Amino acid sequence: MITIALDAMGGDHAPRAEVEGAVLAARQYGVRILLVGVESKVRAELNRQSWRGLPLEVVNATEVITMDDSPSLAFRKKRDSSVHVGAKLVRQGQADAIVSAGNTGAVMAVARFILGTLPSVDRPALAAPFPTAKGGAAVLLDVGANVDSRPEHLEQFAIMGEIYCRTIFGVRRPRVAVLSIGEEEMKGNELTREVSNRLKHSSLNFVGNVEGKDFFKGNVDVIVCDGFVGNIVLKISEGLVEHVGGMLKKALQSSLSAQVGYVFSRHAFAEFRKKIDYSEYGGVPLLGVRGITIIGHGRSNSNAIKNAIRVASELCRAKANEKIEQELSAAVASARA
Amino acid sequence: MITIALDAMGGDHAPRAEVEGAVLAARQYGVRILLVGVESKVRAELNRQSWRGLPLEVVNATEVITMDDSPSLAFRKKRDSSVHVGAKLVRQGQADAIVSAGNTGAVMAVARFILGTLPSVDRPALAAPFPTAKGGAAVLLDVGANVDSRPEHLEQFAIMGEIYCRTIFGVRRPRVAVLSIGEEEMKGNELTREVSNRLKHSSLNFVGNVEGKDFFKGNVDVIVCDGFVGNIVLKISEGLVEHVGGMLKKALQSSLSAQVGYVFSRHAFAEFRKKIDYSEYGGVPLLGVRGITIIGHGRSNSNAIKNAIRVASELCRAKANEKIEQELSAAVASARA
Repeated sequence: MITIALDAMGGDHAPRAEVEGAVLAARQYGVRILLVGVESKVRAELNRQSWRGLPLEVVNATEVITMDDSPSLAFRKKRDSSVHVGAKLVRQGQADAIVSAGNTGAVMAVARFILGTLPSVDRPALAAPFPTAKGGAAVLLDVGANVDSRPEHLEQFAIMGEIYCRTIFGVRRPRVAVLSIGEEEMKGNELTREVSNRLKHSSLNFVGNVEGKDFFKGNVDVIVCDGFVGNIVLKISEGLVEHVGGMLKKALQSSLSAQVGYVFSRHAFAEFRKKIDYSEYGGVPLLGVRGITIIGHGRSNSNAIKNAIRVASELCRAKANEKIEQELSAAVASARA
Repeated sequence: MITIALDAMGGDHAPRAEVEGAVLAARQYGVRILLVGVESKVRAELNRQSWRGLPLEVVNATEVITMDDSPSLAFRKKRDSSVHVGAKLVRQGQADAIVSAGNTGAVMAVARFILGTLPSVDRPALAAPFPTAKGGAAVLLDVGANVDSRPEHLEQFAIMGEIYCRTIFGVRRPRVAVLSIGEEEMKGNELTREVSNRLKHSSLNFVGNVEGKDFFKGNVDVIVCDGFVGNIVLKISEGLVEHVGGMLKKALQSSLSAQVGYVFSRHAFAEFRKKIDYSEYGGVPLLGVRGITIIGHGRSNSNAIKNAIRVASELCRAKANEKIEQELSAAVASARA
């Protein structure tokens, strides 16, 4: 049975959302879950749930990393945090994956240094799925702040992102693209031109550059970029969806007839919100570390936690990390040949 | 009287939108407008309008740059295009500014090479206003593909963007920020750290880093970034607004009650669309060239053209280019001191 270490203290609604999500996931996906956190608090939440017969266990961790903690300080000073303890469970083989909706930077630092990177991986990458106009998802990586990346890093991101896309979204031959400022190959900056050149000679299904305006159209499956650019794209998109939502809300409160209209179309709005809600994807994998690592949004509710556990268990079942190791070393060998 | 050279052949709806916009602007703002384009076509449109007594003139240009033309080829081969002729009118002092809703890359190339850059400007920058949650606008520059920028370029962008913001949005002491991936100064990449360091020691009202998630909140007025990043932010935002709009439309057609709801809230939706419509801003200035240059969106309607002419004339009246020259040379002098 696959075992997931869940950081029960991570998100804004922890430990309640975490415990509820764990109960849902254990029931639905048949995975064993180690709830890692301050034992008294986690047990108190667990006592509110009916979970008899489900494979849930509590593992104590005395410290809690907050959203305001500096990642490097949290990594060095809070050595008995739920994130540290969870990562150690993975390192010692007592869990197959770690899931956390906590401080993204801190989870990345802890996972990277406690678990280490896979052979042939220079930098782990955070891979974010974006909903597209065709109903599927496009995966953008790195969104996790790997700044000043070199071309070989983006090539590794492409290989890892492609495996993730195949595994989680069931795309048989994902189309891989480079995020750039024009479709023509000569457009872009030094980095993207060199990366395009490398990917053209790889075994991936490389389809060229994708521009910002076509990002959401669903014509590509995996999009690689430097982590500075990716992080800005992710945050701008979240910010813009919130901003547009706020303006729409204001518009719908502006007059009586608009309010009446809203009452009639409420269900349609709920469906619409669900579509642009990242929680359906269940978090973002940090690809390239030894041990599956899934980072959820700080705002994760129990549904998001459940989905993050699903993604973690699917990546475990598909042996995603073994595939990354194999394909990266094959790419390195072919580049040397 | 301020004279504007208007590329009458530029946008997707040219020359109709251009001619209509020119008539509106001449009437409303008291500016003289030279309609540059294929004379027979421009006159045919003008004959549909009532413009008696307005200071409108037609200047013939035999060639037309299309949206599909490569900017460098268009610049070199179509030397009698409406953009070339318009830019030459500015160079010869027969017009104070050029406005075009044509091929952005081609307009940038023509303006840059026919008009030249102002002293102390290394690279002209395209400055895009974004609507914010507080009802105002934040100006992002460069969005025009100045890739692999160096710190001194972004410092120049900051000085030019600040003058534009003061002039067009009437902000007395604009807050200037660097687009980055964290608020802390040490976050970011090599470029942003060096730029922050320079701006901290400048005379600008520098407020530090702004993250993607806070981009639309309206807490800053001028945001600088490399042109690769800025172009992606601009295009991602346009793509996302379109994508979200499409999903919302689908949701509102999903059931009878949603359709009924839409009928009641139609007016609110129209107001909402107007708010996220870039045409209200009337185009984007290319700052740093000798002669005011405003580039409109290809989709510009007559209202957008009218507003682009307004922005051009306000920048002329405020002597924005003289200010840019003075403040840049002062900055250079103080850096040397």
